[in-house]
Order: sequence, then C-alpha cells, then structure tokens
Amino acid sequence: MHDAETLWADFKTRIATADDYMNSLRGRRINVFFMGERVPEPIDNPVIRPSINAMAATYRIASERPELATTHSGISDRQINRFLHVPTSPGDLVAKHEMQRELGRRTGTCFQRCVGLDAIGTCHSVTFDVDAKIGTKYHQRFLAFLRRAQAANVVIGGAMTDPKGDRSKAPHQQSDLDLFLHVVKRDDKGIYVSGAKMHQTGAINSHWLIFMPTMRMTEADRDWSVVGAVRVDAPGLTYIVGRQTNDTRIVDGGAIDAGNANFAGQESLIVFENVFVPYAHVYMDGEWEFATSLVERFTTYHRSSYVCKTGLGDVLIGAAASAAEYNGVEAASHIKDKLVEMTHLNETIYSSCMAGAHQSKPVASGAYINDEMLSNVAKHNVTRFPFEIARLAQDIAGGLVVTMPSEKDLQNNEIGPLIRKFLQGKDGVEVTDRMRILRLIENMTIGRNAVGYLTESLHGAGSPQAQRIQIARAMRIEDKKSRARTLAGVNQPAK
Amino acid sequence: MHDAETLWADFKTRIATADDYMNSLRGRRINVFFMGERVPEPIDNPVIRPSINAMAATYRIASERPELATTHSGISDRQINRFLHVPTSPGDLVAKHEMQRELGRRTGTCFQRCVGLDAIGTCHSVTFDVDAKIGTKYHQRFLAFLRRAQAANVVIGGAMTDPKGDRSKAPHQQSDLDLFLHVVKRDDKGIYVSGAKMHQTGAINSHWLIFMPTMRMTEADRDWSVVGAVRVDAPGLTYIVGRQTNDTRIVDGGAIDAGNANFAGQESLIVFENVFVPYAHVYMDGEWEFATSLVERFTTYHRSSYVCKTGLGDVLIGAAASAAEYNGVEAASHIKDKLVEMTHLNETIYSSCMAGAHQSKPVASGAYINDEMLSNVAKHNVTRFPFEIARLAQDIAGGLVVTMPSEKDLQNNEIGPLIRKFLQGKDGVEVTDRMRILRLIENMTIGRNAVGYLTESLHGAGSPQAQRIQIARAMRIEDKKSRARTLAGVNQPAK
Amino acid sequence: MHDAETLWADFKTRIATADDYMNSLRGRRINVFFMGERVPEPIDNPVIRPSINAMAATYRIASERPELATTHSGISDRQINRFLHVPTSPGDLVAKHEMQRELGRRTGTCFQRCVGLDAIGTCHSVTFDVDAKIGTKYHQRFLAFLRRAQAANVVIGGAMTDPKGDRSKAPHQQSDLDLFLHVVKRDDKGIYVSGAKMHQTGAINSHWLIFMPTMRMTEADRDWSVVGAVRVDAPGLTYIVGRQTNDTRIVDGGAIDAGNANFAGQESLIVFENVFVPYAHVYMDGEWEFATSLVERFTTYHRSSYVCKTGLGDVLIGAAASAAEYNGVEAASHIKDKLVEMTHLNETIYSSCMAGAHQSKPVASGAYINDEMLSNVAKHNVTRFPFEIARLAQDIAGGLVVTMPSEKDLQNNEIGPLIRKFLQGKDGVEVTDRMRILRLIENMTIGRNAVGYLTESLHGAGSPQAQRIQIARAMRIEDKKSRARTLAGVNQPAK
Amino acid sequence: MHDAETLWADFKTRIATADDYMNSLRGRRINVFFMGERVPEPIDNPVIRPSINAMAATYRIASERPELATTHSGISDRQINRFLHVPTSPGDLVAKHEMQRELGRRTGTCFQRCVGLDAIGTCHSVTFDVDAKIGTKYHQRFLAFLRRAQAANVVIGGAMTDPKGDRSKAPHQQSDLDLFLHVVKRDDKGIYVSGAKMHQTGAINSHWLIFMPTMRMTEADRDWSVVGAVRVDAPGLTYIVGRQTNDTRIVDGGAIDAGNANFAGQESLIVFENVFVPYAHVYMDGEWEFATSLVERFTTYHRSSYVCKTGLGDVLIGAAASAAEYNGVEAASHIKDKLVEMTHLNETIYSSCMAGAHQSKPVASGAYINDEMLSNVAKHNVTRFPFEIARLAQDIAGGLVVTMPSEKDLQNNEIGPLIRKFLQGKDGVEVTDRMRILRLIENMTIGRNAVGYLTESLHGAGSPQAQRIQIARAMRIEDKKSRARTLAGVNQPAK
Repeated sequence: MHDAETLWADFKTRIATADDYMNSLRGRRINVFFMGERVPEPIDNPVIRPSINAMAATYRIASERPELATTHSGISDRQINRFLHVPTSPGDLVAKHEMQRELGRRTGTCFQRCVGLDAIGTCHSVTFDVDAKIGTKYHQRFLAFLRRAQAANVVIGGAMTDPKGDRSKAPHQQSDLDLFLHVVKRDDKGIYVSGAKMHQTGAINSHWLIFMPTMRMTEADRDWSVVGAVRVDAPGLTYIVGRQTNDTRIVDGGAIDAGNANFAGQESLIVFENVFVPYAHVYMDGEWEFATSLVERFTTYHRSSYVCKTGLGDVLIGAAASAAEYNGVEAASHIKDKLVEMTHLNETIYSSCMAGAHQSKPVASGAYINDEMLSNVAKHNVTRFPFEIARLAQDIAGGLVVTMPSEKDLQNNEIGPLIRKFLQGKDGVEVTDRMRILRLIENMTIGRNAVGYLTESLHGAGSPQAQRIQIARAMRIEDKKSRARTLAGVNQPAK
Repeated sequence: MHDAETLWADFKTRIATADDYMNSLRGRRINVFFMGERVPEPIDNPVIRPSINAMAATYRIASERPELATTHSGISDRQINRFLHVPTSPGDLVAKHEMQRELGRRTGTCFQRCVGLDAIGTCHSVTFDVDAKIGTKYHQRFLAFLRRAQAANVVIGGAMTDPKGDRSKAPHQQSDLDLFLHVVKRDDKGIYVSGAKMHQTGAINSHWLIFMPTMRMTEADRDWSVVGAVRVDAPGLTYIVGRQTNDTRIVDGGAIDAGNANFAGQESLIVFENVFVPYAHVYMDGEWEFATSLVERFTTYHRSSYVCKTGLGDVLIGAAASAAEYNGVEAASHIKDKLVEMTHLNETIYSSCMAGAHQSKPVASGAYINDEMLSNVAKHNVTRFPFEIARLAQDIAGGLVVTMPSEKDLQNNEIGPLIRKFLQGKDGVEVTDRMRILRLIENMTIGRNAVGYLTESLHGAGSPQAQRIQIARAMRIEDKKSRARTLAGVNQPAK
Repeated sequence: MHDAETLWADFKTRIATADDYMNSLRGRRINVFFMGERVPEPIDNPVIRPSINAMAATYRIASERPELATTHSGISDRQINRFLHVPTSPGDLVAKHEMQRELGRRTGTCFQRCVGLDAIGTCHSVTFDVDAKIGTKYHQRFLAFLRRAQAANVVIGGAMTDPKGDRSKAPHQQSDLDLFLHVVKRDDKGIYVSGAKMHQTGAINSHWLIFMPTMRMTEADRDWSVVGAVRVDAPGLTYIVGRQTNDTRIVDGGAIDAGNANFAGQESLIVFENVFVPYAHVYMDGEWEFATSLVERFTTYHRSSYVCKTGLGDVLIGAAASAAEYNGVEAASHIKDKLVEMTHLNETIYSSCMAGAHQSKPVASGAYINDEMLSNVAKHNVTRFPFEIARLAQDIAGGLVVTMPSEKDLQNNEIGPLIRKFLQGKDGVEVTDRMRILRLIENMTIGRNAVGYLTESLHGAGSPQAQRIQIARAMRIEDKKSRARTLAGVNQPAK
Repeated sequence: MHDAETLWADFKTRIATADDYMNSLRGRRINVFFMGERVPEPIDNPVIRPSINAMAATYRIASERPELATTHSGISDRQINRFLHVPTSPGDLVAKHEMQRELGRRTGTCFQRCVGLDAIGTCHSVTFDVDAKIGTKYHQRFLAFLRRAQAANVVIGGAMTDPKGDRSKAPHQQSDLDLFLHVVKRDDKGIYVSGAKMHQTGAINSHWLIFMPTMRMTEADRDWSVVGAVRVDAPGLTYIVGRQTNDTRIVDGGAIDAGNANFAGQESLIVFENVFVPYAHVYMDGEWEFATSLVERFTTYHRSSYVCKTGLGDVLIGAAASAAEYNGVEAASHIKDKLVEMTHLNETIYSSCMAGAHQSKPVASGAYINDEMLSNVAKHNVTRFPFEIARLAQDIAGGLVVTMPSEKDLQNNEIGPLIRKFLQGKDGVEVTDRMRILRLIENMTIGRNAVGYLTESLHGAGSPQAQRIQIARAMRIEDKKSRARTLAGVNQPAK
C-alpha cells in the first residue's frame, strides 16, 4: 500500500519513444489471464503483442509527426503527447481527431489510448464543477496527477462500463453489490474499491487507469459514485483478456493469414478486489449528483473519438481498391462506383466528428467539449456506415476472401506451386501480394480487426440506443414545433 | 444600351428593409411569363408572390439578427448583408451556413439568394486568377461592381445551367449554337450575348444576374467562355416561370390548403437574345481554360449552401411532432423513434456542411472556399436524407395528409360542421390547427415546397452523379492503397 | 326506406362494359361535395372524372383480357368480373394479383376496386364463422347479396376506417359516440347506422358500400360491431371528396401539365346519418368477438392487394427510361444501374405479394386467404421501396421535372418557339413528348398520383407500425429461440 | 483408370442414414490438404468435421421428415432424397426451398448439398437440348448416371467456378490454358481434363463431382466446353481446403468458444491434373453454344437456393431474442422493433425465393426452373439483408460478443468464479448459457459461420453485379417505356 509519491516512483524516467514504451511494460506485477492461463509478460504473448504495437503507435506518431501528435500543455507548461492533453480550444479537438484518423490509417485497428484521453478531459471539468459547488479539492489533486502523467508520458486508460447486473435496479439495489464498482472501505490514507469493469480497451497496455461511474446515480448510490486513478499493476486487480475472432491466427505461424500481423485491439474484463486508492488519486467520492454530467461529458468526447474508424475506413477502401486492381477489374464502372460510395460514407462520418469538434464549447474549467448533438450524430453514423463499407469491400474483393488456402499451403512443395498457378490474378501481381490484401480485407470485415471496426463501432462509447436518447434530448423539439406552427398559420383564423 | 453608370442609376437609394426590397421590384420593364400569359408586375401575381416573400426574408433577417446576417466587408469597408459578402475566413462560411439554416426555418422553402452569393465568391477568386495569369483587369472591374451592389444592397442572382442540347457535344459543336450562352457580337462598348439559362432560382426576384459557363470549355469554345452581369430587366431577357406542384392552390382561395401560404421558391427559364453587357460588367471573355475552376469553385460553395435544407428539415420535424401531438400519439415509442431518426439524418447533413466550412481554405484572391470533399459529401447526403425525412413525416402524420377535405368545405354550412365533428383529434386541438399542420406536411413532402425540399435537393448544384465524380477525384485513392499495402505487408517476403 | 328487392331494382340490367359503367353513374341522388360545393353529377366534374376513368378500367380489362379479369364463380355459377370473386384457390389470388399489377400498368394510379373485393372475401368467411358459432344466418344472406352483385356486375366499395377520436378509448367510451360507426336504432325491417368512414377509396364511383368495423371490439362495443351493405346513394350518406396534390391541374387546361390526364385516384370522407340497412343487408350486428378476425382477414387480403403498386412502378421505371432516352443519356452506366435498382425494388415487392398468394390457405368457409406473414411483409416493403423508386426516377429525369414551363406557354406565340428551341433534347425527340414524360414523372413522384403511389402506399391497409405489430405476432419467436439454443448448446454442460 | 461400372462398384450399398454417410467417407484415397498438411482422413480432422456433420444433416432430415426431404423420382421410379431430384413441378421447387430453410435452421450454416442438386437439374435439361439440336446422346447417359446416384443415395457436388486468370480474355486466349478447366486429351475410353475449380462448396464431403463451364464460351473454346462427372477420389484430383475465420477455435478446446461447435461450411480449391472421365460420365464435350444456357439455368436454380440463408436468419433472430432475454432487456421497445426488422428482412428474402419457385416454368426436358427475374431478385436481396440482420443481432446482443473471456477462463479456479460473478445476466440465467448464445451470435456475424451467412451470401451463385446484369436483361424495359408513353400521351397532339 502506497502513497502517491511511491506509486509514481517507477515512472521517474520519461517514456520518450515507442521503444521506451515497449520496455516500460516489462517487469510489472500485473495479473493477466488469457484463455485460461496466466500471462506473465503480456508483451511476449503473441496474441496480445499486436495490441501493444498499436498502442506504441501513439508514441511513434509523436516522434514522427510532433506537429500533429504533441502540443503544449498549460497545465504542466511543457510539450506533451496529445493523448495526455486537456483540450482548451476547438483547434485542440480538431487536431485530436486528425491524429486519431491518422493512427487509424497507420494501424488499421483500435490503438486504445482514447478512453484515457477522454477520461482526462472529463475529469478536468467535472472535478472543477464539484469543487465549485461543494468546496472539495478534487481539481487540484487531479491536476497534480495529470502533471505527473504528462511528465512521465504514461498511458492512462479509462474504465467506465460496470457489469450492471439487473438493469432495472440501481447500484445499491443489486443483489450483488459488486455489480457496480464501489467503495468498500475508507481509512485515513485512502479508499478501497471493489467491483469490475467490462470491455476495457487496452487496459493491460496502460500504466494507469482512471475508473469512473457508468451512469446516473441516486443519493443512495453514494458509495458507487467514485472516481479515482490506480496503477494497472495495483494489488487486487485482475485482467481477463477477451477472445477475439481469429485471435490465434497469429500463432498458426506466418504473417499472411493474420491479415494485419502487426496490429490489433484489446479488450479485457478487469476485476477490482479491495483495491487501495490513496486520496491523492481520488477525484470523486460520494458526489452522486455529478455522475450524470461526468457520463455525458465523457460520452460526448468519446463518441467523437470514433473518428478513428475513418482511418480504418481509409485502409479498407484502399485494400478494396488494391484487390480490384490485383483482380484486373479496377476499371469496371460498378467497382469505381462502390469505392465512391465507401468514401462517401467514410467522409460523412468524418464530417460529423469534425463539425462537432469545430463547434465545441468551453465548460467552467476551461476545457472544450465537442458539440453534444453532433457528437452523438457522429457516433450514430459509426454504428451504421462501417458495416456497409465492409459489405462493399467484400463485394469488390470477391469470394476468395473466405475460401483462400493458408499461407502454409503455399510453403508445401506439392500444393504450393498449384496455388501460385491458380491464384494468379492480373499479370505482374505477386500471388502473395494478392493474398495479403485479401487477408487484410478478411481481417477488417470478418476477422480480428472487424471486432473493432464493426462490433465496437456499434457498442463502444454507448450502443445505438444510447445515442438516440441523447439526440432526443438535444433536438430542441419545442423550437421545431414552434417554427412549423408559425409557417402553417396555427392559431390564425381561417380566412 | 447603357454604360455601367447609367445602369446603376436606378439603385442610388440603398434597399434597407424587406419593405424597401418589395417596393424595389415594382415598375421594372421585366419580361415575365407564367402559364402562357405575360405577368406585368410579378409581385402582384399571387402564385409568384410567396417566392418574393421568401427572398424578402433575407432582408428581414438582416434587420432582426444583424449579428448573423450582416458583416463588415473589406471590399466596400461597410456593414453589408451577408448575401453580398466574399468569405475571407472559415468563420464567414460558418456564419453563412447558420444564416442559411435559420432562413430555412423561417420560410420552409428556398429563399433564392444563395446562387448569387456563391457566384460572387467564385468570381472574386477566378477573376483574380485570370488576371494573374493573363494580365487582364477583370478583378478590379468585378470589385467595382461588387462595391456598387453592396452599397445598393441589391439581390444578385447567379445563372449557370445552359440547356446543353446534345450532351455528347461541346458548345461549339451543337447544331444550335445558342444551346450554350455565348457572345454573338462585340463592339467598343461591350459584348452581346445570346442563349438561355435553365432552372434559374429566384431570377425574377433579383436585381442583377451574373451569368457563368456551366462546364469545362475547350479552346474552340472561347465565345462560350463568358462571365458577366446584367440587370434583370435588361432588353433581350425573357423569363418563363416554371410550374410547381400545387402552385395554384393559393389561387383557390383560403390560406390553409396551401400549407405554407406565405413562402415558396421560384424557378424560371431565362432566354437571352442579343443582350448587351458593357465591358465594366464583363468578367471573363474567352479565357476558356478557367471555366473548369470557375465551375468547381461555384459548385463547392453552392453544394454546401444546401445546408438550408436542414432548416426545412427542422420545420418538417416540428410539423411531424405537432401532428403526432394533435393526433394524440406523441408518446408512442415508434413515433419518438421516428422523430429521432429524422433529426439524426437532418443533423448529419448539417454536420457535413459545417465541417466543410470550418475546414475551408483560402485561394489566391484571399477568398475562402469550403473543403471540396466535404462539400460534395454534404450535398450527396442532401440528395438522399430529405427523402427519408419526408417519408417519415408522412408516416407520422397519417393518411389524412392526402385525403383531407378543402378549407372551403369547412366554410360550407352543410358539411363544415361534419368535418369539424369527424376531424377532431386530441381534445382541445382546434380542427383547423390540425388541418394546417397536415397541409404544411403535404406542402413539404408532396406539395409546392417539396419541389425545393426534395427534387431540387437532388438536382440543385449538380445531380448526384456530379458529386460522385468529384468525390472520386478528391478521394486520394493512391494514398489509401498505400496504407492498405503497408499494413498487409505487400512486397514483404512471406515468412 | 326500402327492402332489398327494391334497392336492387335499379340494377336489373347487367353492367357489361366500361361504357355501361360510366352511364350507370349518372342520375343517382348522391350527395357529393368537393372544395366547398355540391357536385351534382360527379362524372361531369373534371377533377373527379379521371378517378372514374380508372375505375372503368376494371371493366375494360374484363372485356379485353377475360382470361385474366373474369372467372367462374361457384356462388352464382356464372362467369364474373374477378373483382366480385371470392378466392377459392391459390390460383385465384395469383390471378387477382396479376390483374392488379396489370391495371396499375394501365392506369398509373389507384383504380379503387380492391377494397370492395377484399371486403367480399372477408365477409364470406367471417359470416360463415359467426353462423357456425352462434347460429346466425349471415352467410346465406351475404351469399344472396353477392349473387345479385355478381349478376348486376356492380362496383362494391368497402368502408372500414373510422375517425377514431381519442385513440386511447374504446368506441363506447368516446365523448362523441359517432366517432365509430354504430347502430343507433333497430326496427323490424332493419337497422339505422350513424358515424363516418375516412379515406374512402373510390366510394363515389361505387354502387354499393360494405361497411365494417375498423378494429378489435369489446363486449360493450356491441352496437359498433356492425357489418352491412348500403347503396352509395342511400339517404343519409354524404361524401366529401378530399383534395389531392395538383388536383386542379386538369382544370387549368391542356393535357400535358396534368402528367396523366386520364387517370387518378379518389378518396373521400363519408358521413352516415341514420342510414337505414334492411336486415337482408346486415352481416354482423353485435358479434363483437369476431371484429378482430374480420379486421385481420381484411388486412391480410388488402395488404397484398398493394401489388398494384408494382404496376405503377413499371410505369415509373418506363417513364424514367424514356426520360433518359429523350435526354440522350440512356447509355450512361449510372443511369442503367439506377433502372436496375428500381426494377429490383419493384420486383421485390411483387415477389412478397405473390409468395403470399401462392401460399394462401383456406379458412372454414372455403375462401383462401393470403399467408399472413408474407402479406404483412409485402405491404411493409410497399411502405418503403416506392419512395426510393420515386427518388431514383427524379434523379434520372433531371430537375426539369419541377422547373418546366406550362403547356400553355408552348401555345403562346412569343415564348412558345423559345421553349421549343431550348427544351430540345436528343435529336428527333418531340419537345412535347419530352415534356409529357417529365410531367408523368412529376405526376407520380410529387403530383396527383404520388398521393397513391407514395402516401397511400404508406398508410393504405394500415400504416407501417400496423404491419410491424402483425409481423411480431406471426414471427414464431419461440421456435427461433429454440433453434438458436439447440445450436449454441444451451443447457449442455460446458465440456 | 476405370469404366463407369467399376467406378460405381464402391457404391453398391445404398447410403441410407446419416451414419451410413459418415462411414462412407472413410477409406477413400482422397488427396486433401489443409494448412499446409495432408489430411489423410478428413472426417477425423476436427476443423473439417463440422462441415461433414452439416452435410450429414441432409441425410438425417430425410429420415426424420421424409415428407419434406424425400420424394418419388420418375427417373428411377423410387423414393429418393430430394437432393437428388430433378424438379418436375412448382411444388418440387417449393418443397426444395422449404427443406433448404429447415436445414438452415438445423445447422446454422451451409450444408453444402445444393450445388450438386442444382447441377443435376441443369444437366437434365441442357443435355436434353443438346441432343435435340445436335443428335448427341448425352441425356440418356446422364439419366443412367443419375439413376445410379439415386439408387446409391450419394452426395453429388457441383463444380463450376474456374480461376479465370485475365478476365478480359476468353479461355483459349489465356497465357496458361489451365486457367479454365479443359479437355487435354481424348481416347476411345474417355477424356482427360486439367484445370481447377475454386470456392468449391463441400467437395470433400461429396462422393461425386459434376464439373461444368463457368461462363459463355466461343467456338474457339470447344475444349473448355465440357461437362462430366468424376469420383471425388479420382486420380489427379487435389483439394486444398480454404481457411475460415475462427476455423481453429474448435481445436482450442471446449465447445462454447466455437459458438456452433457442431456445424460449419467448407470451401476448397480443387485442382484437376489429367483426370480421366469415361464417356459414360461425359455430358458435354465441345458444344460451346450451350454453355450460356447451362450457366443461366444453373444460376437461376442456385440463386434461389440461397433461401437457406433465411433458415440461418431464423437462428440468428432467435439467438438475438435469447440474448435480449438473458440480458433482461427483452421488453424494451427498441429491442422488439429490431427483432421485427430482422424478421421483415428475412421473410422478404424468403418471399422472393418462394415466389420464383411457385412461378417456375418447365423447359423442354420437363424439368422446372425458377422464374429467372425473381430468382435474381431473391439472390440480390441475399447480398444485402443478411448484413443488416447481422448488424442488428450484434446491436441487440451487446459488446460482450467480442470481448468475452474464453470458456477456458471459466475452468480456471482463480478467475472462473470471477467470470461467473460478473457475467451474470438476468436472474436464473446460467452464465454459460448466456456465453453460448453470445458465442453463437459471434459465430454467425463475425465468426466461422459468418463466412457462409455473409460473405458467401454476397458471392455464392454469382456476385451482386451478376444479378444486376440478369435483372437488366429480364426487365422488359421496352414494355415499361411503352406503358409510360401511353399514359403520358406521347405522340398525341398537345390539346
């Protein structure tokens, strides 16, 4: 059990590069399981490794394109990775989204650092509001935490989704009180929390986690109204990595069959058992009435972060165009038309996200938050268009996407030559290149990275119905009715 | 035949208000036909009048909300109506779009002043480029024209679409050379042009028209590569107003059946017969190689101007919500869900338009132009979503939208009481109010203003295929392919 | 006040031809209003006339294609018009649907005779069931009525939709008891009914009307649980013809602007005030528990009758293809692709309707009824696809559909030649032919027959939500869940 | 090398049951590879085994529901499995489709026996036509083959898709002549063929294969215009089994993670190297002019066979409904609405398929073939709706579908209890049952059986564009244009 100082002692050396980051993940006492077995060193696990590579890309881009992926922070008065930045202007949010799209293009998957980024922005303003209303000191505490994080350049993950149990009951009404994360004990040093967080993106690849409530709380839910930061390797934390479609392809050997051998996403179930959090790392404890705005701000930030999927869309459009070229059909009008349609849908998502960034507004703490309506609209489009883009990609690519022999067959002396003979596409195209592109399309539409491109596009940052509820709230229907009535001449005598 | 000075003599008094504007339309020697008859004073024609009311709203909004609809012009160094402003920052385009949406909400129709606005922005930059390359003096000429227009606060219309005849032939190859507007004579004072422009929005309600080529020109099309400004009542101009669905409803008597009795759009066919244009009003004459960029810039501006349809969408959503309320079904989950869907689609359009404004970039003259990709994406969404919004509005409103008795039946002593008895909706709702709202929905989905909300959403500023061609050009497919190949490991040896 | 014999006396001469039918409409004492005025002889009203022409097409087709539109009836043992036939085999329903599609092709509008046809089939089986359970004699009464109708070859209309008032209340709970049609008096000769029926298709063009309850009834709604047949000109009936988009175009003069000058649909509000029905024409009186199956059977028949819209779709596809040809763009790949898409959607509707006819099943009376699930699915597709077909038709046709000058302008000496010059499309195409086709597209997508092709496709035979409720009932979800659980191994021990 | 008699000697004992079938696959000298290794006995390969189970279901259903899955054959005058039946009435095709849907429900995957079934129907009529025109004796030869097959109750596979190489060239123009299967030698006993067939469904699980040309042939392609039957284990045949998403899940251990542990599809690449076919098994050899009708008839049959996907749709709808129930949200209106939408789409596909069966027509041989237009429309809907059904299933199921721990984690003493605690859904639901259902949804939407439900729905029996071309041919556009012109009054004088 540690105070904040001790807990940060391991992060004295700034993580400057992607390599530094990779090294920083070694030697932790982190409690990780995958497929029924403990994973002592996740970075050495071939299934988990691609998700670490994807996270590392957030460091690499800061080195390669600092104008895009780093910025000056007024909080710590230094140049920092944009993933640790509290946005203080529309331009900050615009740059964030451009960076997210570019990382989507570079990795073709979820690079996992956005939840934490959006948690930072959210905590910045909510702690400010709580202090302003209640006189607590959360905001300064949080700034101190953030300054350390910016100095160390660590990965902060965000943990929100509780298991929820019986959805018709509040947290304090659940038969098992752990179904929402809650404070189980308080002492003079800090609090102890128990519970779990589900669908946690990139948690194992993070250094710290910020946990937050997942929905509106009532007064009786005070112990569940808790926000804090813990080290990923804090005692009492257990991680169970979820299975993904085709996760073990990479273990089968070779690099072609995996489709995108280097990059993948990662989701895990995190169990908290009496995890200690010193007060320096507690940013809400009982202020239940702020849970709603915390959730709304987080989702507003995070729904727009799905702009990253347009980067994946770029890759998939490019893959489909390559497949068409390798198949020798790139000049067919219906092929060109499908590529245009894919692009149109992809850019529509982009436009919704960007409009909401440009039209962001500041809240009391000075942080800027995306326009609520547009952010929900953006995410709602993300729950639809990638599925159609994926369908069109498969349409262009052809059935070979799902009937193709393994890379290992290529290496077999007897059948390898047969495959090379019969999978030959357009003259001059390497059969392995054609296979690689088709496997990438498989990967993104029905394989490992379809998890992120499709299913998480549906459910991440809230399922479709959650956006519809927000849109209903934000739609200003009375004004619209009033406009209609005026034009229709309602309340005017019939002439 | 006049020089510029004389031509402007009638506009010495600044048109300050909507009333001024209405008065300014009287007493012109304008040659207008509708339904086979000459219309001596369009403002007194009951079918045309609602379109003039809609245009007048562009003056009224400047009086009522000057912060939105007026701005300072660096060109004439005065506060001007935003419809005469060359945008010189993203903020200018953002404000323009907000104004357009608000006018859509106020009128529920096409207010007709955007074509001219977008023509102004286009001519500003194209004349600059022509001068820079060829050494002509078009830009200063154009600025002089614009200064007068800003001072007088006139309505400038824009005229682009030629009849085109045989679409497989260039202008100079047509069997009838007038199928594209062209210079038929030049003398020392000016040029004479003949031809026609089709689908001309609000031309009769304008004071001046800027005519422009409608597509790429070749060297042999020099005489067709012509831009100039003419007074709407210039000798040689004839206007034939197109018929609109339900255009004569307003003449049937009463105000309910028309749905939106005050506001409508207007399209006409303009015929040019040897129309004289003094050189002061000529802004391109033969520089065929600039026709392409002129058209591209104009369409980039103008496709985003279709943000106005989100204002109409607001009205239609409000009308549907009112109809649901009057029918007593506003609490049904499927009704609420449909209103959310309508809003989602409407805001998606809005977001595409706004993103393109925020991400506008300057060209050489200093004018800002919307992002090309996003503007095309925005308009492409406009060719789709209003149709679904209209379908949902009809779904919510019910079949009475198309089976309802006339307002005149209400006034009949025998059947009026029967209608009041049987059309009664929810308690406390006036039958006439219910009828008004349903007629407004008819008006916007299958009536007079459906012309603008639906069909012109398809074809205005270029039909769907035109956007697809632009999207194909702007989609940077080689970069996308390269990203895909990198991730797929193309050109890497199979391990 | 009459007995059945007297009431049928006017129909002694069989209506053999379309001309006979037209003549049969003259000289009735029918109480009709339109736009605030009494219409003494509807057939002479130019706005109503096209709807009579459309109804007459149901007679003409019987003369021209008897193998399709007539059949032998076992009830009257004679060859009859298929619109008076109770289907007794899948083949009967298949032939009915083919006839409906063909009439859609011939008229491009609603020919109005299907409601009555579907009412006949419904009453045949429901009266049988009531008698079987309760011992009444409705079925024989109804057969007697039907024999007379088949002999006379009259048009029978069906009247179902009540005003409904407050939708949260049952008929007997309404503040105004007339908001559902009900028995107000009974004597030894018959019953007297009051109330109203809304959105009544072709009622004025019919000879007889069968009225039926519109929804499930409760025991307290006995007086509202009433089915009977009345002459269209029975004392106490008043008809108020609803306004349609562009209804008065035909009065403006000329035949081009109307788009489809010969054919249109018709809807009216029918008010019943103490209308006498002799017992011979009463087919339900108080048997409230059969109202549900009556409504379900009627909607099952009638939802499939919307196959007629595929005939309209054929016309609209043909019009779009003609417009493309006249515009000289018929070879463009995107045009061809849009025609294919329109056809695909149109044939999907057709297939749903036909599958439900082929898979019809008999009920106790021997009548065959379409498959319930497929009939609802068919209609649900009708609420969607015509809107997309219409959008694509407008896309292909171009903006001229809504900006075109009037036919009257053509006749003007001054501007007529200008229009002919500038509206010239492809060489060899008559300008008036091009105008006619574009006006037909206007007529079907945003004009008078869009009322039937679009809005009534949404609401006729039940609004979209009504089909969703039926689909939910018919979807056999427990079987589906069981299949899924079996495959998933639910209730099997984890290995 | 064998004559027909010898080749059939191994099939003397009728395969009566599913178990017989399983046994019949053992001990063949079949040359199969998977993931780079020879598979000596496919039935013992755990990845291949589920595909054999699915094929076996076609035998089991014949035992369990003989009224559906067996029929009397006039060819062999005996009761046979319907998968070996040449349809001779619409009822045969209707029953076939009902059987296909039911097998889809039973297996949740592709049961692989339809290609051969549709090949049989096709060969029946094409051999008849060739003989009639050319005087060959193919039809009797084919009937003899079919009689043996019916007697033995073997699985016949169909092989059509050639690698095609450069798609702009005819078979005889390819640089490698093997890119289309062709006759390389003829002697007095038979022919020898070389080439390959791609994406071959269930070939390894078959006993015989009928190979056919894949597209129109020209006279110079005589050697490529070849149809014949070979034993699956004929010398010279090599099978390379394609990889499927999650194919190795089953090897990871346990039955939950696989989602559908018992059933899967199978596709392979078949290489032919000098494969001998005795003349008794040759059914076309050079009659190039019949290749087109062979392909058209096969695709017409086979596109409707995709009705099986509605059986998979039933399973997925049931799985989604179960997931909603297990999650405790089955009463939410948006959940119910999504289940209705899934059902509506699924039944729309069904209706298109069934309509085409009911409206099938006979060809000269007496075989009935589905309506061409409707069969193409049906398949085209299959290329779209399953993707939306899958998206909605994922929407209902929630993100856990792609983030869930492995079944092996459950078995771990340390984390198993944590998973049971936190994955608890509604009270009374077993955690493993919830996991099973979610894994089934994963399996069908992004896992192994998504290969069949989604990607093969796109490409099987021809990619979407192939259907569009057929629809364009079958759409009778001239009739449609004529209808439109008549209604518009084209060629009538303007009044």
